[in-house]
Amino acid sequence: MDVGFIGAGRMGRVMIANLVAAGHRVRAFDPDPAAVEAVRAAGAEAAVSAADAFGGDAVISMLPNDAAMLAVFGPGGVLPEGGAATIHVNMATASVDCAETLAAFHAARGVPYVAAPVFGRPEVAAARQLNIMAAGDEAAIGRVQPLFDALAKKTWRLGPEPHQANVAKIAGNLMVACMLEAMGEASVLAKAYGMEPATVLDVVVGSLFDVPIYRAYAGLIGARQFEPAGFDMRLGLKDAKLALDAGEAANATLPFASALRDIYLDALAHGGEGKDWSALTEVALRRAGLD
Amino acid sequence: MDVGFIGAGRMGRVMIANLVAAGHRVRAFDPDPAAVEAVRAAGAEAAVSAADAFGGDAVISMLPNDAAMLAVFGPGGVLPEGGAATIHVNMATASVDCAETLAAFHAARGVPYVAAPVFGRPEVAAARQLNIMAAGDEAAIGRVQPLFDALAKKTWRLGPEPHQANVAKIAGNLMVACMLEAMGEASVLAKAYGMEPATVLDVVVGSLFDVPIYRAYAGLIGARQFEPAGFDMRLGLKDAKLALDAGEAANATLPFASALRDIYLDALAHGGEGKDWSALTEVALRRAGLD
Amino acid sequence: MDVGFIGAGRMGRVMIANLVAAGHRVRAFDPDPAAVEAVRAAGAEAAVSAADAFGGDAVISMLPNDAAMLAVFGPGGVLPEGGAATIHVNMATASVDCAETLAAFHAARGVPYVAAPVFGRPEVAAARQLNIMAAGDEAAIGRVQPLFDALAKKTWRLGPEPHQANVAKIAGNLMVACMLEAMGEASVLAKAYGMEPATVLDVVVGSLFDVPIYRAYAGLIGARQFEPAGFDMRLGLKDAKLALDAGEAANATLPFASALRDIYLDALAHGGEGKDWSALTEVALRRAGLD
Amino acid sequence: MDVGFIGAGRMGRVMIANLVAAGHRVRAFDPDPAAVEAVRAAGAEAAVSAADAFGGDAVISMLPNDAAMLAVFGPGGVLPEGGAATIHVNMATASVDCAETLAAFHAARGVPYVAAPVFGRPEVAAARQLNIMAAGDEAAIGRVQPLFDALAKKTWRLGPEPHQANVAKIAGNLMVACMLEAMGEASVLAKAYGMEPATVLDVVVGSLFDVPIYRAYAGLIGARQFEPAGFDMRLGLKDAKLALDAGEAANATLPFASALRDIYLDALAHGGEGKDWSALTEVALRRAGLD
Repeated sequence: MDVGFIGAGRMGRVMIANLVAAGHRVRAFDPDPAAVEAVRAAGAEAAVSAADAFGGDAVISMLPNDAAMLAVFGPGGVLPEGGAATIHVNMATASVDCAETLAAFHAARGVPYVAAPVFGRPEVAAARQLNIMAAGDEAAIGRVQPLFDALAKKTWRLGPEPHQANVAKIAGNLMVACMLEAMGEASVLAKAYGMEPATVLDVVVGSLFDVPIYRAYAGLIGARQFEPAGFDMRLGLKDAKLALDAGEAANATLPFASALRDIYLDALAHGGEGKDWSALTEVALRRAGLD
Repeated sequence: MDVGFIGAGRMGRVMIANLVAAGHRVRAFDPDPAAVEAVRAAGAEAAVSAADAFGGDAVISMLPNDAAMLAVFGPGGVLPEGGAATIHVNMATASVDCAETLAAFHAARGVPYVAAPVFGRPEVAAARQLNIMAAGDEAAIGRVQPLFDALAKKTWRLGPEPHQANVAKIAGNLMVACMLEAMGEASVLAKAYGMEPATVLDVVVGSLFDVPIYRAYAGLIGARQFEPAGFDMRLGLKDAKLALDAGEAANATLPFASALRDIYLDALAHGGEGKDWSALTEVALRRAGLD
Repeated sequence: MDVGFIGAGRMGRVMIANLVAAGHRVRAFDPDPAAVEAVRAAGAEAAVSAADAFGGDAVISMLPNDAAMLAVFGPGGVLPEGGAATIHVNMATASVDCAETLAAFHAARGVPYVAAPVFGRPEVAAARQLNIMAAGDEAAIGRVQPLFDALAKKTWRLGPEPHQANVAKIAGNLMVACMLEAMGEASVLAKAYGMEPATVLDVVVGSLFDVPIYRAYAGLIGARQFEPAGFDMRLGLKDAKLALDAGEAANATLPFASALRDIYLDALAHGGEGKDWSALTEVALRRAGLD
Repeated sequence: MDVGFIGAGRMGRVMIANLVAAGHRVRAFDPDPAAVEAVRAAGAEAAVSAADAFGGDAVISMLPNDAAMLAVFGPGGVLPEGGAATIHVNMATASVDCAETLAAFHAARGVPYVAAPVFGRPEVAAARQLNIMAAGDEAAIGRVQPLFDALAKKTWRLGPEPHQANVAKIAGNLMVACMLEAMGEASVLAKAYGMEPATVLDVVVGSLFDVPIYRAYAGLIGARQFEPAGFDMRLGLKDAKLALDAGEAANATLPFASALRDIYLDALAHGGEGKDWSALTEVALRRAGLD
């Protein structure tokens, strides 16, 4: 397929390489010159602007935040006034509010829109082991499925409204953050009674939760190794707030997400800036005077 | 080995059968006549009292709560005044406070004491797939290791103080309860945006948390099937309080455990008695008006 | 003094009448025709636009929310490009973020700016019993002090930065909301043990908290009379969020404010729309199955 | 009246003096020799034991905790097996559980029992400005009303079950603790925006909450003067737990009380032992990095 790609950051460039490897023709844009270099190295064509990248069978975007998505795909952005057959596949994590705004604007402009956020970091993406959550028009998803197949282990269909995929992504990230805090509280209990947190986490993870995500984070927490951050505290706070805001719009409370917000703020008030989001375990220890 | 066994409930009788199958000689006591029947069917000898069961190389106990443990193994119970060579292996879930009291009393009486709570339900025990957390005197644990090998997939050593194994068990159960509430909050987000909770839980569990305990509970929560309870709300509340009390004794707070306590109480105030502890997801839905 | 007034809602019109009664010349604007009528009845001149009202010694504004304040006093609004000697006195409740934005824009345009939110409802304002919290340039506050004297029992000086007065207002409203929830929890305890909430609230308020605000709310809560709302649930939620957002910008957590946010959402999910914010006591009762 | 008095601590001895001053004959017991001295100085007769003090028209007790109350008035204590006409008036703060146990035991022994906890510290008691919450048999309360009149400004009748007075006392203390935390959160907001907490507390208390209890605590918090403690952190924690336990027995949650428990523990984990319970404001500041 003939594919545009907007946003060639750490995730984007790995995905571009996989698309090219699967035989797709990719035309990618990123304002960062280093990214342009990476795009070319991956075998894709470098576009000179987001508008230049928009076109062909589909455009995948992987932009860092709501503001960037709205700037490129909202009013004044790249969507042609007369509509387009090009399917826009937004694979980044967006707030529900932003997702709804984008869906409405694409509908108004007559551009097919699919939301398809992913679970998995760059190394997972490189191994084509991503999980994709896709939502939006069934037919449009069907048409871009070959692209998903080039990128991911599995595509999950979430529903007819694009923002539903974003809700699922937010819910999943919340479940991961809850896992982290649960490990933090287990660590406090361990330390309060003279054991290494790593000892207790090993037992519990080894007995009940023996999957890579638990093992990896238990390792970081057990070793208290929070730098460099794979995903930092600010992003952890942002994720907790995405969940809270999504809930709030429906008058729904999320007690764990509320606790997480407060714990991330506590972390940021005590030197947590730039540390991995799993360092909330340090907040638990500090509050108990066990740090 | 020559083994006494006190407490032949649903877990106990499966464990007795495994001990017998491994060639150990077991003499078991339980006040319930049905349990006595089961003990005999499993190939063990029926003792006429707890005191009658106490003796031999080791005595394993599997009693339902702190009060029962203190009645049998505290002052006025079965521990001989002059001490004994019989190792008492307490495999039940006890509070830290009870665990410390029992350890002190065994030491005072001169009876070796090992705490060895487990992860796993009766069906897991039947398949010898338990995980055992053992703490106490190294030599004593070493002597009863053949019994653990007959019962479990793996024995984890936690530390020299028996109550450390109980802390690890409490921490592990807390991590499981946190998983349940995390699923409940994901369910709220799903439902608030027109998706089936099962759909979102399937994606997240299938993508990130693909282990039996997640799959099993995601199934119950997705199907809203909370009866009969495998482990009920009251026990969930009790577990949350074991964690809170263990923390409190060390001036340590556990925000998720505090939230869980309140959610279990809310469940019990709304017909949760007798339902599975995973039904706290219903509290999340009800609070959001989505039930 | 020669005074403009923008925003003649329930509070605004009472304040206008007091200014006129104190001998000030007032030129007031409100887009609502009924408000214009009230302005004239109060002895003020009706301006035809916000820009028409802006001028003279000072302009007081009493607008309902951040958006309205930014529309009138932000870019594209009434502040003259060349600056003005007219002091803008913003007496409404604003978010800290909005307050900082307005202060910066007034400084950029060269228009003196004072923030002066108040404690007190329309009936308190009518009796000139308001408390004013004023922050900003000392000299500017000094010049408008005669206006404050016409409106309030007392003016409190908070600091040199206008937003400091907004922070104090937000903190005060938080303290009031905390009082409401405290009464709600006392009501739960009362009802759980067979007493009328009113009985217990009467004792505690009569013994320890014998001031009008406690007595008034204890009366509403005791009688479960939450309609018509003096200040409704949505505003309660908004206030809790103003506090949380003000804290968040400084990495500060506010556990009671977090709890209040969740309680207001619970109320709104269960028919609380349009009820008085003191009805959060109903959430407490419902959660305990005592409603 | 002829009155026994058991427990002549700081509160007890002031109350004894007031009873004597009102013309009652008092026979008081306390195991502490200094207390015996104070009793005599107050014009009362010193009893040699709790049993010696029990008798006459009524016995007032003012013991420090549940354990002391149960030791003196539970099985093995002073209540005569054959019953008595002496009315026992328990004026201390007890848990609901203890209160129910005592009521049942008095009923079983045939001794009239009234619970009558108070609001007010020793200096308030000295000025006869206590507020008494009385619950139990109406006739019994009526008979001891002259004693209450000698001690208090006002007696509030709470209900026919003695423990109802204890519930009201617990609810009142919870409302006071909530006030403290509300001030703590206001202090955080103040400090986060460059104001002295005292400045903001003065405005809010002066404007809305102008009663002695608010003024006094605002003064301590504003001055950060937490030693010597009038009522210390451990007692604050105990009070929060009395509320939580009372709620839990009825499946009722109290979100503010839960937050308070955790804040008191945090305080105790950071050198709060022995400080006034109003020092929870320090926890709020420390969590925000503003201490």
